[in-house]
Amino acid sequence: MVLRLDQIVARLGGEIVGAGDTAISRIATLENAGPGDLAFLANPKYRHQLASTRAAAVIMAPPAADGLQAAILTAQPYLYYARVAQWLNPLPVPAPGIHPSAVVEGEVASTASIGPNVWVGPGATIGEGVVIAANCSIGAGVAIGAESRLAANVSIYSGTCLGARCLIHSGAVVGADGFGFARDADGRWVKIPQVGRVLIGDDVEIGAGTTIDRGALGDTVIADGVKLDNQIQVGHNVQIGAHSAMAGCVGIAGSAVIGARCTVGGGAIILGHLHIADDVNVSAGTLVTKSIQAAGTYSGAVPFLEHGDWLRNFSRLRHLDAMADKIRALEQRLAALEKK
Amino acid sequence: MVLRLDQIVARLGGEIVGAGDTAISRIATLENAGPGDLAFLANPKYRHQLASTRAAAVIMAPPAADGLQAAILTAQPYLYYARVAQWLNPLPVPAPGIHPSAVVEGEVASTASIGPNVWVGPGATIGEGVVIAANCSIGAGVAIGAESRLAANVSIYSGTCLGARCLIHSGAVVGADGFGFARDADGRWVKIPQVGRVLIGDDVEIGAGTTIDRGALGDTVIADGVKLDNQIQVGHNVQIGAHSAMAGCVGIAGSAVIGARCTVGGGAIILGHLHIADDVNVSAGTLVTKSIQAAGTYSGAVPFLEHGDWLRNFSRLRHLDAMADKIRALEQRLAALEKK
Amino acid sequence: MVLRLDQIVARLGGEIVGAGDTAISRIATLENAGPGDLAFLANPKYRHQLASTRAAAVIMAPPAADGLQAAILTAQPYLYYARVAQWLNPLPVPAPGIHPSAVVEGEVASTASIGPNVWVGPGATIGEGVVIAANCSIGAGVAIGAESRLAANVSIYSGTCLGARCLIHSGAVVGADGFGFARDADGRWVKIPQVGRVLIGDDVEIGAGTTIDRGALGDTVIADGVKLDNQIQVGHNVQIGAHSAMAGCVGIAGSAVIGARCTVGGGAIILGHLHIADDVNVSAGTLVTKSIQAAGTYSGAVPFLEHGDWLRNFSRLRHLDAMADKIRALEQRLAALEKK
Repeated sequence: MVLRLDQIVARLGGEIVGAGDTAISRIATLENAGPGDLAFLANPKYRHQLASTRAAAVIMAPPAADGLQAAILTAQPYLYYARVAQWLNPLPVPAPGIHPSAVVEGEVASTASIGPNVWVGPGATIGEGVVIAANCSIGAGVAIGAESRLAANVSIYSGTCLGARCLIHSGAVVGADGFGFARDADGRWVKIPQVGRVLIGDDVEIGAGTTIDRGALGDTVIADGVKLDNQIQVGHNVQIGAHSAMAGCVGIAGSAVIGARCTVGGGAIILGHLHIADDVNVSAGTLVTKSIQAAGTYSGAVPFLEHGDWLRNFSRLRHLDAMADKIRALEQRLAALEKK
Repeated sequence: MVLRLDQIVARLGGEIVGAGDTAISRIATLENAGPGDLAFLANPKYRHQLASTRAAAVIMAPPAADGLQAAILTAQPYLYYARVAQWLNPLPVPAPGIHPSAVVEGEVASTASIGPNVWVGPGATIGEGVVIAANCSIGAGVAIGAESRLAANVSIYSGTCLGARCLIHSGAVVGADGFGFARDADGRWVKIPQVGRVLIGDDVEIGAGTTIDRGALGDTVIADGVKLDNQIQVGHNVQIGAHSAMAGCVGIAGSAVIGARCTVGGGAIILGHLHIADDVNVSAGTLVTKSIQAAGTYSGAVPFLEHGDWLRNFSRLRHLDAMADKIRALEQRLAALEKK
Repeated sequence: MVLRLDQIVARLGGEIVGAGDTAISRIATLENAGPGDLAFLANPKYRHQLASTRAAAVIMAPPAADGLQAAILTAQPYLYYARVAQWLNPLPVPAPGIHPSAVVEGEVASTASIGPNVWVGPGATIGEGVVIAANCSIGAGVAIGAESRLAANVSIYSGTCLGARCLIHSGAVVGADGFGFARDADGRWVKIPQVGRVLIGDDVEIGAGTTIDRGALGDTVIADGVKLDNQIQVGHNVQIGAHSAMAGCVGIAGSAVIGARCTVGGGAIILGHLHIADDVNVSAGTLVTKSIQAAGTYSGAVPFLEHGDWLRNFSRLRHLDAMADKIRALEQRLAALEKK
């Protein structure tokens, strides 16, 4: 596909500097762009690369840099880049139909594509334009909304409802049992049947190896537009509000309720039964042990140090209380001395 | 299924308050229960919901609350709930037999159910009543005990032994190679063949995406009744004692030996070659770097703070040793002054 | 297989103490070895087991211990053990050919073995001696180098290039979309197409459930000899240098560049866009938030304590800044007093 800058601006807005008939066929970074590439400057850290880029044009915030062949000026270059990149890289559309090796017991829309060795259980309904890649397993009664896509080896348990235009990556598991047990007098665990479902809205992306458990009694609910990176664990009865996004390796324990438009950094853990307000940002590596009532950024990770420095400093953590006591004693002794 | 309270009490014990012929067909929370539902009060935090619940009956510790239609009194309402819920939600029993798309090279009991596109390797033995869902891969020589169930897309490597009544969720991997390498003079890693097995007892549950490595020389051993949540990593030659339970995202490094009836909170990590005594509870987010000899609860996570507070406080961690030195110097100077 | 010590030393070097025609057929630990077993002493902690081992011979550093039946002396007993163990445990070679249940649209070398229910997409090329186990999904245009092995249920996305002699464990996902979105004015996320690839060198091992994302624009690159344990997350455009090794549950955020011969301990997280020099060791549980310029060991985990001690000490972390202020105030007051 080849696009001219004036075509792009006609659809996506922005202002052209230079020749509107400049043709581009690919997005590239400032550093790697060649002739025919459209580059972008979103992070000021890369501003110095403007001088040497060979890009045919650059998406950037005004004013245009001197010396560029051409530019598209926009207040939000990163968002603009995303939109042009989507235009230039349309999703491949596999031929509709059910591969002969697939085992389909449910209902599949005529425009859906079901890949090799897929299983679709009884009562499942697969919407128009859905793409299910090889070796996926779709449980009984699952509903998958129009134009959603499942990469290879995805597992969806019975009863899960998935909205439209979702994207689920390989190895993801939706609807497995939540972790619920009662302990008997002998210390044995008695399983609590997990009879709720997982309800997922529209435009949700679920990363590779991410697991979302079904509810124990009620449902686990992932709202519209939520984006989950890889290897995230979402416990039973969790609710995640619309357009929240979480980076890799995050864990959300059971019954936590996360607001809308939150972000959670990589490896953070949110404990169970907590409430997190809308528009909360949790930094990477933070363990959230209490509810958060107000929008804002919250952090809890410790710095790292060269190993010897770490040993010297962090061993003191075992004695912080004693240090505080010593300071209090010093204050009292000093006050006594000052009085004399 | 409809049960009367007197039927329930006849099998599970407890004392009825109200009409013994009250019929219930479903378990629900106090908040969501309607007519025909049996609710439960296990967490005192929800006690206020008793006043407004529409449940036909409530499982609770004595004494019964005023105003309820009916109740079952028991010292352990959560455990009681688990048992009634199991009764009301019996596991579905798929028709026995081998799906025509499955590839079976081992031996399968006549009452077992092997799903679509499953592979069962040569020499594997699948016990009575076992259910293996779609797209599972069962390696050569694997033994799976009676009535165990594998959800879709589970991978079991050759030689693994699984007990009876186990439940393994999608994406779990049992018996992959442990991580063992020796470094040569050039810094290259030379693989140490992992020739041990994974031995799993009865009544073990393994969560979605959880991985349990085979032993390097000896075996990795998971004892009876162990419950592992999702995305847990268990290294080679680990031993986990009976009825221990671990929450999501836990990591257990190689050759760690965990006692019986332990609990490990989400995201905790236990380093290799450690011994953890029976009845130890490790809190969420704790990194266990030394063996634990005595039962009890052990913690190591740091609090989280509003970002600005975090910056101010946690940057001090780099200077804890200097703070301790300053306190010591103050003590000496003050003592000198006091002597005068 | 039975080997004599003199055969072993002829191939691998080292010095025999005792009878060179001592025959061994298995490697075992000092503790578990019986007649016919070759044991090894690599960790001085196990030295006391030399006295009671029943091993036919022991690999150890000189000098030989008294009382052993026989020994092979070498400066690097662990490396030596790895090499003998590889010799004694050759990889099983499945019969070449394509299982009739597999769906192969690409090109497969005649000596490769493609297991049951595997899918190989159009344009994929599978090299000589490659083994792909059951239920793997190999996307369009993927290239897999000679003698690489994929365990069951591995997912490789389109365009991935994998070198020779790699080993990929079950549940691993290579080439899923990186986590890239731009936020629009309403707080919605606009997906950035992930059009780069994953390029993996020779002799790379990838653990069970590990996920490696494709690049956003450029490629994600894993160099020769890299060893990744289970459940590691590697973000888009990450580069990992040759012979680096990472333990389970590590997370590497997007565009991080890791040097050669690095090691990363379990559960550590490396944030995005950082540079880590060659020969850096990151300790388990460390969150790396800044680039590391110099070889060495870096740590950032906090100690764990008995729960009551932890409460007392770690609650002080919220007041570290106030403690530092108090110390400064004490120093000033004391100096004032000393001047008098």
